[in-house]
Amino acid sequence: MSRQTLAEGLDFSGGDYGIVAVVAVIALAALVIGWFLLKEVLAAGQGTAKMQDIAKAVQEGAAAYLKRQRNTLSIFGVVVFLLLLALPADDWNERIGRSVFFLVGAVFSFLIGYTGMWLATRANLRVAAASREPGGREKAMRAAFRTGGAVGMFTVGLGLFGAAVVVLAYTGQAPKVLEGFGFGAALIAMFMRVGGGIFTKAADVGADLVGKVEQNIPEDDPRNAATIADNVGDNVGDCAGMAADLFESYAVTLVAALILGSTAFGVHGLLFPLIVPAIGVVTAVIGVYITRARSGENGLVTINRSFYISAAISAVLCAVASFVYLPGSFADFGAAHAGVAGNPAVIAFVAVIIGIVLAGVILRLTGYYTGTEHGPVRNVGETSRTGAATVILSGISVGFESAVYTALVIGAAVFGAYLLGGTVALFAVALAGTGLLTTVGVIVAMDTFGPVSDNAQGIAEMSGEVDEDAAQILTELDAVGNTTKAITKGIAIATAVLAATALFGSYQDSIAKAVADIGESAAGVKSFVDTIVSPNTLVGVIVGAAVVFLFSGLAVNAVSRAAGAVVYEVRRQFRDIPGIMEGTTRPEYGKVVDIVTRDSLRELATPGLLAVFAPIAVGFGLGTGALAGYLAGAIATGTLMAIFLANSGGAWDNAKKLVEDGHHGGKGSEAHAATVIGDTVGDPFKDTAGPAINPLIKVMNLVSVLIAPAIVQFSIGPDASAGVRIAISLVAVAIIVAAIVVSKRRASVMTDTPSEDATPAKTA
Amino acid sequence: MSRQTLAEGLDFSGGDYGIVAVVAVIALAALVIGWFLLKEVLAAGQGTAKMQDIAKAVQEGAAAYLKRQRNTLSIFGVVVFLLLLALPADDWNERIGRSVFFLVGAVFSFLIGYTGMWLATRANLRVAAASREPGGREKAMRAAFRTGGAVGMFTVGLGLFGAAVVVLAYTGQAPKVLEGFGFGAALIAMFMRVGGGIFTKAADVGADLVGKVEQNIPEDDPRNAATIADNVGDNVGDCAGMAADLFESYAVTLVAALILGSTAFGVHGLLFPLIVPAIGVVTAVIGVYITRARSGENGLVTINRSFYISAAISAVLCAVASFVYLPGSFADFGAAHAGVAGNPAVIAFVAVIIGIVLAGVILRLTGYYTGTEHGPVRNVGETSRTGAATVILSGISVGFESAVYTALVIGAAVFGAYLLGGTVALFAVALAGTGLLTTVGVIVAMDTFGPVSDNAQGIAEMSGEVDEDAAQILTELDAVGNTTKAITKGIAIATAVLAATALFGSYQDSIAKAVADIGESAAGVKSFVDTIVSPNTLVGVIVGAAVVFLFSGLAVNAVSRAAGAVVYEVRRQFRDIPGIMEGTTRPEYGKVVDIVTRDSLRELATPGLLAVFAPIAVGFGLGTGALAGYLAGAIATGTLMAIFLANSGGAWDNAKKLVEDGHHGGKGSEAHAATVIGDTVGDPFKDTAGPAINPLIKVMNLVSVLIAPAIVQFSIGPDASAGVRIAISLVAVAIIVAAIVVSKRRASVMTDTPSEDATPAKTA
Repeated sequence: MSRQTLAEGLDFSGGDYGIVAVVAVIALAALVIGWFLLKEVLAAGQGTAKMQDIAKAVQEGAAAYLKRQRNTLSIFGVVVFLLLLALPADDWNERIGRSVFFLVGAVFSFLIGYTGMWLATRANLRVAAASREPGGREKAMRAAFRTGGAVGMFTVGLGLFGAAVVVLAYTGQAPKVLEGFGFGAALIAMFMRVGGGIFTKAADVGADLVGKVEQNIPEDDPRNAATIADNVGDNVGDCAGMAADLFESYAVTLVAALILGSTAFGVHGLLFPLIVPAIGVVTAVIGVYITRARSGENGLVTINRSFYISAAISAVLCAVASFVYLPGSFADFGAAHAGVAGNPAVIAFVAVIIGIVLAGVILRLTGYYTGTEHGPVRNVGETSRTGAATVILSGISVGFESAVYTALVIGAAVFGAYLLGGTVALFAVALAGTGLLTTVGVIVAMDTFGPVSDNAQGIAEMSGEVDEDAAQILTELDAVGNTTKAITKGIAIATAVLAATALFGSYQDSIAKAVADIGESAAGVKSFVDTIVSPNTLVGVIVGAAVVFLFSGLAVNAVSRAAGAVVYEVRRQFRDIPGIMEGTTRPEYGKVVDIVTRDSLRELATPGLLAVFAPIAVGFGLGTGALAGYLAGAIATGTLMAIFLANSGGAWDNAKKLVEDGHHGGKGSEAHAATVIGDTVGDPFKDTAGPAINPLIKVMNLVSVLIAPAIVQFSIGPDASAGVRIAISLVAVAIIVAAIVVSKRRASVMTDTPSEDATPAKTA
Repeated sequence: MSRQTLAEGLDFSGGDYGIVAVVAVIALAALVIGWFLLKEVLAAGQGTAKMQDIAKAVQEGAAAYLKRQRNTLSIFGVVVFLLLLALPADDWNERIGRSVFFLVGAVFSFLIGYTGMWLATRANLRVAAASREPGGREKAMRAAFRTGGAVGMFTVGLGLFGAAVVVLAYTGQAPKVLEGFGFGAALIAMFMRVGGGIFTKAADVGADLVGKVEQNIPEDDPRNAATIADNVGDNVGDCAGMAADLFESYAVTLVAALILGSTAFGVHGLLFPLIVPAIGVVTAVIGVYITRARSGENGLVTINRSFYISAAISAVLCAVASFVYLPGSFADFGAAHAGVAGNPAVIAFVAVIIGIVLAGVILRLTGYYTGTEHGPVRNVGETSRTGAATVILSGISVGFESAVYTALVIGAAVFGAYLLGGTVALFAVALAGTGLLTTVGVIVAMDTFGPVSDNAQGIAEMSGEVDEDAAQILTELDAVGNTTKAITKGIAIATAVLAATALFGSYQDSIAKAVADIGESAAGVKSFVDTIVSPNTLVGVIVGAAVVFLFSGLAVNAVSRAAGAVVYEVRRQFRDIPGIMEGTTRPEYGKVVDIVTRDSLRELATPGLLAVFAPIAVGFGLGTGALAGYLAGAIATGTLMAIFLANSGGAWDNAKKLVEDGHHGGKGSEAHAATVIGDTVGDPFKDTAGPAINPLIKVMNLVSVLIAPAIVQFSIGPDASAGVRIAISLVAVAIIVAAIVVSKRRASVMTDTPSEDATPAKTA
């Protein structure tokens, strides 16, 4: 019996509905708590008028960007909504539900991102103001962390609420509808990660190249026309993009578990994956409220303690839930499960623990490779004495090495859950994913910490109204934020692998069910299945790996192009507007914000189209076997590439901080210049290409799951038509090629810019 | 009927033996022609006594390194020889033959490398001398290209001869014995690539960091204690390593075709893959002899013309061979092939053409991405105006992009051959590989060109006895060599993919045969087969991709460490030996050569052990399905990584040359400094990590093919024992971990070097 038919036959009792309702209530409670945290943050003092002025400019820039992004993405959303309606489904209820919840997932994803940005652009001001008050360190840290807490609560609340509603409304058909929900969340998150990532790094790199390198003025100097854009970028990239991304990680992991749950554990399997993250909501609240800075203690230690405490409580509560809610034998799940060996309660408990432990291990591993106090970053700092080339090489080595170990740890978690699960191996992998989810609330809080502190520092610097002590507090918080950001990326990519492995299984199921539905002769089915494992599969693996490289290259390139436009504009302003350098005239900040907004929205299309259409091209063109290979290649290479990019970037950033703290010659030395080069190279690595790979993997997986029945339909049985398949594949290829050609053409426009603009202003 | 049983039943007629004998004679003729080319090169003038002095120092250093490398590798060789004897085989004849021909392959591989080095260290002097004579450009180019021609002839001659002898001696059992031959060639080539790659870049980077950066003296300045080591490095890395690598590519591709041939085409299938490369020998001779520099023509154009002409002749001759030798129907191959649809002659012809065309396309693609006259490199040069960070980023983009397109082209070739082949799809892929082989003779000639010209330039510079015109000639040849080197790497990785795809098939066969031999019950076999496709496979793909990242990271790290040792020694000599800077005292060149020799041999162990033991750990630990996934992941990620590393490195190198030619400020400008940083980063990319991935892929594939029967033996049937499997896996893991820990410890020794040595001499 295939998974879907089992699921459709599910019988929900009143008690079952009750459990889902409780979960929904917990989810709503999370939203309410988030609201209270938000109120608390907003109630704090807002500093001087000058500080408020600056914050206002950042708020407006960020809101304007997200508004335009919303318009752009709406078009995408509507097109995909219609395409989804056209894909095969069991009945119209499922078909419409899938499309509608696609929109719900997409809107939620955007909403979380928007809220994260909205709050962060207000919290930055309050954090900067708090640093000036007595007891400023504790107050500033509390405000920054509670901002993150609010966003974290919204993330888990909306994710859990959405999933619970789908389960309540669709019961047996929930898995199919959830595919739409997860897809919507992942698609929008990917666009927000890519667009925001391009924005933040184009502004950052552009500002640095003219400000720090050419004009020799400090970071966040108000004379630099790109400073407001730089601060806007922190919010639309690191806040909005990150929040949407973590929401998507949450939603897709949950979806993967729910899709597999009913086959494995019957009704219990559809409810247990909701119970585990509901526990996570409770412990996240605890984690956020117990986080208090102790004087003399590194901020990272404080945050890590909260993480470990809440993870430990989650583990205990999950153990209770497993043994109370789940029976000790599969026979208790009903006739369909009779004869399956193993103890469901033990399997579920250990799987969830694997997920929680995995989060802890990644936290430590990432901290080790990107923290200033450990060997790797100190080693990168050391190499700054022999110049930029050795800094780059050592950072790349750190990235490679940490990627390998992190990937192996994730692989071990998958393998462990798989061994444990026996006949329900895939569900065990998905449950490990839900274990990881219990930590997401705290993780979001940790991550939002970074950009809020960074921005607070920016406001302080630009206003010039924060004294040295307060500035020191903000610098410390910023450094802590650097490491928490890297940790979040590690956790996010771990959810990607666990979810993808589970979805990989549901892709195979989807094919098996479609084949069964067509009712082809046994011989026809066999010859179809034979095509699944073939050299084609290997070609698929190569193409999957290639798409990850292409996506990364496109993202890095987009940053370079957009940063180039910023450089020209800032140079132009220095040259054409008299009095900027003397500080008597304000530069036109808005112009730079406009340019970056326009460019990032234009640049996000190509990688986005690649993610959606590449699986379509491979699946229809080379077959289901090649598409499976494609997914495997993309997951494996994507995992390594994402961690490599995130950690090498993080190591370079902190190596620079190390030198700025006075090692190897300190600020202004040649060693410092070498680490600045490393940091600039790392910027698009860690904040554009790297984090976008996480939603990329999930988008490609979900597209594959969704199109699998259609591929089968055109491959065997009455509708079989190689012509149709090839036509669809060619259209997909044409779309990708056209997108790449268009972005290439933009590149040559940039190179053709009149040479006067290409010359630094100081030589003009 | 499985492939092996078919092959064992092969019936060789007298005519068949005759064909193999003719192939063997052609192979010997290649060796003789190589000998004549060698004589011609050696007969040329040898320049002044001072030039000869320098050349002698380089010769001695290179010979000493290879001698010590030979001793190190001998230990490895003997251990693997014994391990191979222990692996299951059909009978003792096969078992001993496999081990003995492992040694033959290993010795051949080393011999080719040694000969390449030996000749190159003599030819460099003659090329430098020729540049001083009237008509110097033509003479120098001819000498450099004919040196390559000699090495090319030895490469194809020994490869073809070895394979022909195995087929003559073992007929039906030849495929199994050939696995040993290919493995020996690939294993030694990998070590020579890694060791030579570390040597050449450690010396190069170390020399540059102290010479160019700290002391501001030009490259190849005789006052730099590392110059001789740098020139030795060109020979042991770019010549010896490259020659062994291409020999290995040749041998393994041939082996893959021969393994699959007899199942597909019967006896014809064992002979046709020998005929195609024999044709390649003939056309390579033509290609080498028609290469004549025309005045006013870029050297690259001359070489490319020879390539295209010889490729075209190969295509025509292969068409003739296909249609004359192969029948138009599978029925003609005997009863076992009756009923197979398709025309063998057409399949073989088109497959070979696919291989030849693939070589041409890679030549163009690589030329486009790394040549100074095209967009990508010019773009990298352009970014030098905004500093080193943008140079690094744009070079990385070029690398990503070119990797994607090259991988897609290779994937398309595999897919094309696969579609064409129908039921003999894998053999068609292997035949495309043999098509590629027809170009290897010319490719080796093109590649050897690079280091010989580079060295000639070094000798000219150090002796100071070459005038400006002659120096200009050598500089031009060096630039041409840069691009030909990148092209060679592209072709080598293409052979890796084609051979690996074919070997992937023989891995599956190997498992099927082992399962059949054990005679387990149908149910037992089914439950075993079920484990093959599972989440485990995905874990295998992740581990395979991770090993490629780890291997690359280890190689880059090894270069950094060894370069560090060079830096300290050169600084020490500048500080402790008076008169070096004034040119009155000769630095102790030999000391630096000794240090690099010691360090490279020590460093090659870890990546080498990883390559051999990782597949063992995965195969025995996670099963045959995970090992298949592992191979797929390693092939896909390896292909992309290898091309990324080779082409980004090539682009940076040539962007530097562009600036040195006077663009963007020319030598000594800030743009130049930025491109020097790019070039230094690219050095270990393109000459250490990148090229070593090619033999790495083949070593891992062949290890898997060889151990597959043993894994099956311990998985099902009477010998099944999870304990034994886990024990073997853990031993393999322990070996890898121990190797990594040892090399980590070395790293910390370096960092602990007394701080006085860590300080540049000029500040002392």
